[in-house]
Amino acid sequence: MKTKQVFLNGDFIEEPKAMLHFTDLSFQRGYGIFDFFRLVEMEPLFFEEHLDRFYSSAQNMHLQVPVDRGELVDVIHQLIQKNSLPNSGIRISLTGGYSTDGFNPGKPNLILSQHTFSTPSEEQREKGIRLLSHSYQRQLPHVKTIDYLMAIWLQPLKTQNGADDILYHANWFITECPRSNFFLVTGDNRIVTPAENILQGITRAKVIELAKKTHTVEVRPVRWDEIKTAKEAFITSTTKQLLSVAQIDEKVFSEREISTDLLQRFRSAYRC
Amino acid sequence: MKTKQVFLNGDFIEEPKAMLHFTDLSFQRGYGIFDFFRLVEMEPLFFEEHLDRFYSSAQNMHLQVPVDRGELVDVIHQLIQKNSLPNSGIRISLTGGYSTDGFNPGKPNLILSQHTFSTPSEEQREKGIRLLSHSYQRQLPHVKTIDYLMAIWLQPLKTQNGADDILYHANWFITECPRSNFFLVTGDNRIVTPAENILQGITRAKVIELAKKTHTVEVRPVRWDEIKTAKEAFITSTTKQLLSVAQIDEKVFSEREISTDLLQRFRSAYRC
Repeated sequence: MKTKQVFLNGDFIEEPKAMLHFTDLSFQRGYGIFDFFRLVEMEPLFFEEHLDRFYSSAQNMHLQVPVDRGELVDVIHQLIQKNSLPNSGIRISLTGGYSTDGFNPGKPNLILSQHTFSTPSEEQREKGIRLLSHSYQRQLPHVKTIDYLMAIWLQPLKTQNGADDILYHANWFITECPRSNFFLVTGDNRIVTPAENILQGITRAKVIELAKKTHTVEVRPVRWDEIKTAKEAFITSTTKQLLSVAQIDEKVFSEREISTDLLQRFRSAYRC
Repeated sequence: MKTKQVFLNGDFIEEPKAMLHFTDLSFQRGYGIFDFFRLVEMEPLFFEEHLDRFYSSAQNMHLQVPVDRGELVDVIHQLIQKNSLPNSGIRISLTGGYSTDGFNPGKPNLILSQHTFSTPSEEQREKGIRLLSHSYQRQLPHVKTIDYLMAIWLQPLKTQNGADDILYHANWFITECPRSNFFLVTGDNRIVTPAENILQGITRAKVIELAKKTHTVEVRPVRWDEIKTAKEAFITSTTKQLLSVAQIDEKVFSEREISTDLLQRFRSAYRC
């Protein structure tokens, strides 16, 4: 089997050799951004949207992307050709660079890497997943930073509680899951999703677009207690696409008709 | 000049060769801890306290330190001997390790590195520094994680405002600076410092101990508006020791008698 290639600062190298010096600001101070998109028949899905977000994240974090957009697209296509890896996605990573004083950014390091990823199990698809709530607001939520400290720190608690994922809330408003966006379906079939203090997911935007064709969609602050009266809940993400939620803490959702329908429409619309 | 040595996972290597694979969870998800202590005449200052905190941080983050405390002490002394670097400090870093799925921790990577560091300028020592306030609460504040994302993100704003450092507050209570603890001196000479939602600094603890000998010290929640009536303010940290604050936003402190006295007593007590 061929060794996977990675693009690091201008060169294609074998993945095991893709090393960064320990003075990199991601290692020293958790400072960096990334984006991740999946390939459908070897072509990036929602490519422009992910590139838009990546360059926007870089700008927000005062990091200069060392290649322009045309070059980045070209290099990504080369990487896809070289690796020829089905059912995978590309991660674009940009770090704070090698810092001379351990605090101020250096020249950012750019890494493009290709990864297979896990998708929801058959059981999760059939029954929906269980979410455990946690009060927490991500910093710079609109930027796709590498800050997943809380999410990883919560993993043991999640497991102890038999949950599949975490649902964050802050000041009694629902925000998001660590790596997914969140939606509720109200008793009268309105689809609601938080508007602010979240990462604006790309699958989220596509699902909103599709849902608007058949339902009233409300993108607005969503109070925590709206969960009580909701009849359905689901999450969206690049790797999960759209996944029904069966339970949040003690609240059980018995329906998943609308989310199942939306998943089918999403897959059909984007052939994924 | 001799190349500095770094201890990486069991081996002493030259600093330029101290590389980590890009799948490390610090790089991927900002997950890691560290500690930093200075050397005084080649001996670690407050060594036991820093080691206590390092092992406590590791435990809090569910990370296993790959060496026991005795071995760590031994390796640190070897590093100090090898580098023979005056006016420097040692950083102990522990990462989330190489992750196979980019999210779940692997076997932690341990790095010991030695660094010179900048100390306050003559002007800062004489006149005191200027702080810019920012509303923000660090996540897991009692753990010395590598999460300094907000601090680094704020650097350009700090510079634009002609400030030397940031002072965080949350819900109208003062917390800390990104890399220092904060103290106020009230009109009637009480010394007050926030009790919670902060990193429990080691210099902070030593200064509290010294201050108690001559003053009433209150370790408790400190309201933001207590700044208005305070006559003096100062910060403490490993690299700054104790540094007077001349200004926070619009508020100017004209006095620095107590902080100057405490700094002298600190230096004299610990010969640093």
